[in-house]
Amino acid sequence: MARKPTIADVARRAGVSRATVSFALNDRPGVAEETKLRILAASRELGWTPSRQARALSLGKAGAFGLVLARDAEQVGADPFFPAFIAGVEAVIGQRGDGLMIHITAPDNEQGVYRRLASEQQVDGVLLTDLRRDDPRPALLRELGLPAVVVGQPEWGDGLTAVSLDDEPAYTAAVRHLAELGHRHIAHVEGPQELLHAHRRRSAWEQTLRALGLPEGPVLPGGFTPEGGAQATRQLLASAEPPTAIVYGNDLAAMAGLSVAQELGVRVPDQLSLVGYDDAPLTRYSFPPLASARADARGWGEAAARALDAVVAEGAADHVRLPPAQFVPRASMGPAPRR
Amino acid sequence: MARKPTIADVARRAGVSRATVSFALNDRPGVAEETKLRILAASRELGWTPSRQARALSLGKAGAFGLVLARDAEQVGADPFFPAFIAGVEAVIGQRGDGLMIHITAPDNEQGVYRRLASEQQVDGVLLTDLRRDDPRPALLRELGLPAVVVGQPEWGDGLTAVSLDDEPAYTAAVRHLAELGHRHIAHVEGPQELLHAHRRRSAWEQTLRALGLPEGPVLPGGFTPEGGAQATRQLLASAEPPTAIVYGNDLAAMAGLSVAQELGVRVPDQLSLVGYDDAPLTRYSFPPLASARADARGWGEAAARALDAVVAEGAADHVRLPPAQFVPRASMGPAPRR
Repeated sequence: MARKPTIADVARRAGVSRATVSFALNDRPGVAEETKLRILAASRELGWTPSRQARALSLGKAGAFGLVLARDAEQVGADPFFPAFIAGVEAVIGQRGDGLMIHITAPDNEQGVYRRLASEQQVDGVLLTDLRRDDPRPALLRELGLPAVVVGQPEWGDGLTAVSLDDEPAYTAAVRHLAELGHRHIAHVEGPQELLHAHRRRSAWEQTLRALGLPEGPVLPGGFTPEGGAQATRQLLASAEPPTAIVYGNDLAAMAGLSVAQELGVRVPDQLSLVGYDDAPLTRYSFPPLASARADARGWGEAAARALDAVVAEGAADHVRLPPAQFVPRASMGPAPRR
Repeated sequence: MARKPTIADVARRAGVSRATVSFALNDRPGVAEETKLRILAASRELGWTPSRQARALSLGKAGAFGLVLARDAEQVGADPFFPAFIAGVEAVIGQRGDGLMIHITAPDNEQGVYRRLASEQQVDGVLLTDLRRDDPRPALLRELGLPAVVVGQPEWGDGLTAVSLDDEPAYTAAVRHLAELGHRHIAHVEGPQELLHAHRRRSAWEQTLRALGLPEGPVLPGGFTPEGGAQATRQLLASAEPPTAIVYGNDLAAMAGLSVAQELGVRVPDQLSLVGYDDAPLTRYSFPPLASARADARGWGEAAARALDAVVAEGAADHVRLPPAQFVPRASMGPAPRR
């Protein structure tokens, strides 16, 4: 057939009404499975392009949110935050048939990816994670006119809606707990300091020590990776006056630190107390179980998706503050050893 | 303005030619950054919907592939396969501005998600991972007419293009290595047997033992999780005749098993040898480092994306067989203890 097929053609071929075609293709209840299949077959046979693109064209809706991760695949994979966060986003947008478009990209291609998402209208809006100091993305998104929600606490005051969850109370609680256990020499293995949350975690450790009148222990870079955590721990334990406790930027670095202690014959927690962050599945099954901090990443995903819905619909939305992360004490923390 | 804006309106407002607008919005080289921004601003101000939807409507292209994961978010998060696989897919489709639409869904909603992807033409094709016995998806996809590539070795012979990577050689090598080290009592902690790859891993263990004339050790369910691995290991080590070696379905279960051994005072590898699968980042940083098996998940993603490209373009493609996973011996394996 020369002319473009219409919904009426599909209805005729499938032997149903136009309304039934529409209902079936939007997965609304009340259409028998067998009828749906007949309608789908008819629309494929006729080469009819169903509703999404037509709707996108008339309404300017892509039916998807975007998440651009400018990280190594291995780093994304090791981070338990993302799958739970993604599942939370899905819980909100999946019900209406919308999807989450994920790009894992090299950092130097990040801007190009956002540019394409905007210019090709692949998404209705984006979720910004891994906030950085001097982050170029808020300005870029403003230029592109792409609706966005910031997942975290931005330092910039540029009007982007943020959905934040505080890390600090968990770190404060962990350091206070160590102090109560008699620790006076508490080190920190930090995450990449260009990431705002890594920086905030370090600050919380620092400020709590200061508030308690304790000396600031050494700080070493751990990069949020097992490699970095292992190397930093090795260095700390080889120093003239090794710390009796180490607070890590995340669980991956802490798990590797625990193994280094074992390898060196340093008993945890008798000689060394350790605490991570993220409450990764393995922390409960390490030996000894690793103290950590738990944040509701799934709830964070849900709240971020709802906020982005509001931004897309109304151009703006209120900031959302979620309950803070909670310190999870476990057997990797114990009384400070006597000198 | 009452009529719908056109590309000519955008060009006029931005003070450039129509060709420049088209070039800019398709991110082709040769358009100054400043010009691009002016064009984007003009198209937003006029409410002009650029190319993607128009192209999708005329060409039936969504510009995205789909990946539907019917797993717990926690299970997805703990699996190092996915991020590397996703990065591989991105490496192929990202260059042309296409994206990967990811759905993490409850198993009972899986079919509904595929149905929507098809009926709303959200994706041009899907990648099928986590193949199951009696998997309902191939038949569903045929009904829906949705192009697909199977990531793994299907047991069904229904003509879907598969991109496979053998697990067996790595398991065979691990069991042979244990036998050479003098082990005669080798247990297996298996993954969920409805998953084809979990089942194949168990079979490889079984067949290698048989080929070597060794008794089949006990098999316990580990569910690919730390919980399952810990529980199975506890049970094995508490038995009347505990194994001297345990082959796990994956690294997560093995890492938890290693911790249980430590907790019970069973020395690894002096009294017990362990081997996992996946070569997860943490395995190199456990104590002792965990023997494992390495598969090129990123290369798998690239190959799967290229195969799906061919299926979308030509309706079919040849099966692809990637180099098999490789056994990675590490210090968690040692000579069998003398009885």
